[in-house]
Amino acid sequence: MAQKPTIPKGTRDFSPAEMMRRQYIFDTIKQVFRTYGFAPLETPAMENLSTLLGKYGDEGDKLLFKILNSGDYAAGLTDDEMRHFPKISEKGLRYDLTVPFARYVVQHQNELSFPFKRYQIQPVWRADRPQKGRYREFYQCDVDVIGTRSLLCEVELVEIVDRVFRALGVRAILKMNNRKILYGIAEAIGHADKMMDITVAIDKLDKIGLDNVKAELLERGLTPEAVGRLQPILELEGFNTQKISKLSEILANSETGRLGIEEMRTIFSYVERTNLDLPVELDLSLARGLNYYTGAIFEVKALDFAIGSICGGGRYDDLTGIFGLKGLSGVGISFGADRIYDVMCGLDLFPASVNCSTQVLLVNLGSEEEAAVLPLLRKLRDAGIAAEIYPESGKMKKQMEYANRRAIPYVVIVGSDELAAGAAAVKDMRTGEQRQVAFEALADAVSESD
Amino acid sequence: MAQKPTIPKGTRDFSPAEMMRRQYIFDTIKQVFRTYGFAPLETPAMENLSTLLGKYGDEGDKLLFKILNSGDYAAGLTDDEMRHFPKISEKGLRYDLTVPFARYVVQHQNELSFPFKRYQIQPVWRADRPQKGRYREFYQCDVDVIGTRSLLCEVELVEIVDRVFRALGVRAILKMNNRKILYGIAEAIGHADKMMDITVAIDKLDKIGLDNVKAELLERGLTPEAVGRLQPILELEGFNTQKISKLSEILANSETGRLGIEEMRTIFSYVERTNLDLPVELDLSLARGLNYYTGAIFEVKALDFAIGSICGGGRYDDLTGIFGLKGLSGVGISFGADRIYDVMCGLDLFPASVNCSTQVLLVNLGSEEEAAVLPLLRKLRDAGIAAEIYPESGKMKKQMEYANRRAIPYVVIVGSDELAAGAAAVKDMRTGEQRQVAFEALADAVSESD
Repeated sequence: MAQKPTIPKGTRDFSPAEMMRRQYIFDTIKQVFRTYGFAPLETPAMENLSTLLGKYGDEGDKLLFKILNSGDYAAGLTDDEMRHFPKISEKGLRYDLTVPFARYVVQHQNELSFPFKRYQIQPVWRADRPQKGRYREFYQCDVDVIGTRSLLCEVELVEIVDRVFRALGVRAILKMNNRKILYGIAEAIGHADKMMDITVAIDKLDKIGLDNVKAELLERGLTPEAVGRLQPILELEGFNTQKISKLSEILANSETGRLGIEEMRTIFSYVERTNLDLPVELDLSLARGLNYYTGAIFEVKALDFAIGSICGGGRYDDLTGIFGLKGLSGVGISFGADRIYDVMCGLDLFPASVNCSTQVLLVNLGSEEEAAVLPLLRKLRDAGIAAEIYPESGKMKKQMEYANRRAIPYVVIVGSDELAAGAAAVKDMRTGEQRQVAFEALADAVSESD
Repeated sequence: MAQKPTIPKGTRDFSPAEMMRRQYIFDTIKQVFRTYGFAPLETPAMENLSTLLGKYGDEGDKLLFKILNSGDYAAGLTDDEMRHFPKISEKGLRYDLTVPFARYVVQHQNELSFPFKRYQIQPVWRADRPQKGRYREFYQCDVDVIGTRSLLCEVELVEIVDRVFRALGVRAILKMNNRKILYGIAEAIGHADKMMDITVAIDKLDKIGLDNVKAELLERGLTPEAVGRLQPILELEGFNTQKISKLSEILANSETGRLGIEEMRTIFSYVERTNLDLPVELDLSLARGLNYYTGAIFEVKALDFAIGSICGGGRYDDLTGIFGLKGLSGVGISFGADRIYDVMCGLDLFPASVNCSTQVLLVNLGSEEEAAVLPLLRKLRDAGIAAEIYPESGKMKKQMEYANRRAIPYVVIVGSDELAAGAAAVKDMRTGEQRQVAFEALADAVSESD
């Protein structure tokens, strides 16, 4: 085979260097989830097509990866049957973690205790056109609580966002809005049917300015009067509490709007009593695409790196209704691992220790020296230090190069001189410094935190 | 929708309780891998069919899950083209982690430093007939080093097996053999072409006895003379060193056999100098199915639970040859997570802490008490304790039931009496005992290790 093998377009291998950084992100996030009492869940990569189809819109249906039925599926089928896909494919790869979660909750409703708090970190697959930053296989990292309307859940998600990005060292801002407020605005200006149009237009305010937004709203079929009524909303400024009190006047006649305002008032009052690093801002231009949101919605952006949202989510009142279980309200957010990775690489935020898988390399000087070196190696490992011996007694230069390429910070050399002295030569590969360390002090010498 | 949704046959959801136990196993294994300098790798779930086909035999090809090409694949295809699968499927789900690993090494050979030590823990998919204990999606957990012939690698894998099962509390035995010895035996009795037949027959010795094995060998085409020569090998007993010295006499005329004996002698001499809990035994009946093994082979069984092998692997001299890169020798083992899980459940080996995701539940007595309780909750979480508040101020009984069903060991109650006293009522749900704990001592009181 002359040509090197490749992988499918839009998929990736994660090298050890990338994996260690990714695991650092996932481990940090998981640790926070656990602190908040969320438990892990995993669902199969394959779901029945009946579970997946119709849940993501027509566009989503087209982006499902479908799996050929196994067995001798081709033989014995007529040409007509061949074209009838349900016969040759009944399973698809999951498109997100939300629909499988809803399916799981409905399927296992009698075994679960509600409120059910779960997190889920698994890959999803989308047959999208691959392009920079858009992959056909990528991880989602979701945390949801289902089975309660308590706004404490929204508050805890805000805290989780704060803790995660604080732990990762990423400065971020959380923008919040509420679908009920968006509906209330549409209702208040007499266009309850045009909630999404209005939100999309508001969303462009920063980019195209007030006049262009107004023009666009007229194009989208709003009356000039309605646009006039919207203007004070577009011009809302100030602290969250100020925005909310003005909004409550404007939306006084919309019952849904008032409900949304009350929800946000409660959430903000809790959040203010918590000491967050994270700024939390009411942003009326925030809409989020997914149709199932019905209450608070969230979106997080990095402050020091331009890359779109790195986390988002919201409240949904009827997620499990699609599988026949009504009345379960839930709320959840999803962390965008790929983008968080890019932010942290771009800002050089990974601790140095994350970049090295091995802390110590013992040089291999031949079978005689091994007898002395292997017990040392064992002691390092017993102390939990990632250590290895170069498996062959090759040239010193080659072994040093190996340590360098693997970014191993310490190289330990034990030759006949060292054996006689009962002390190893320890070289710090970052500084080039070399010193003698008594065998019994070796673990301490190489485990200094950096 | 009247009917509950389901998942495809042979796939599984992993509930929080299962996930926590599985993560405990994976985390323990990963920790040992890292201590030995192995770094993580992940490859995509989908590989090109050209990468997968022909690597697992005809039977394996049939068991590949194939993915339909995305896009509007049906439209515009003639009936004839429809039947021509490469047009409608060019990708498949990975069948194991070994072939993707080989593909990765060849694809990235110029970026890697050899010896390359990686571990990989990901699901694989096989379109097998589902049955008890056999799934269509399951995790593999592989550790390999490639690019060196050093037998230190075999020794380190033995140590890894020892450390993993010691850490998990599973008593196990490691059986080893060597493909070169198996070939040497076949050669020594004049049937170099019948190595697999001989091995398969030897493998049945325990079950069907010597006479039946001999009969089977005759059936498989061995001469009576050859079977006679084999008899002393079948009757080998004693310590590894005794078996090896007898074998070296019997295989004196087989160069390959002598090489295999020398390899095992070296490996055992290293292993003996290591303090292992794990018994390591030369077992000539061990063959392992995979064709690519060329040297030492490994298999681990649990001592206290009947379930087949829980770990296995071996040395392969030409794994990457299938992708055009010759001469890279490697050795690796794979841990069977599902079986290890079953062993540990069967023997009740999981620590109690693994079974609870939340350590403390704060009872919710209403919005007034919350003001006092939420800062306490925050302090518990700051101390790294998994804690939650019941999100609604429902009935006490309901909240207690929730704690019970979630296996939460501590419930903390702060009502008006407790507020006045500055101390919470802490109930141990396992014993039913309740005591007063000053607010500032709460974290200590509930973080006692169990």
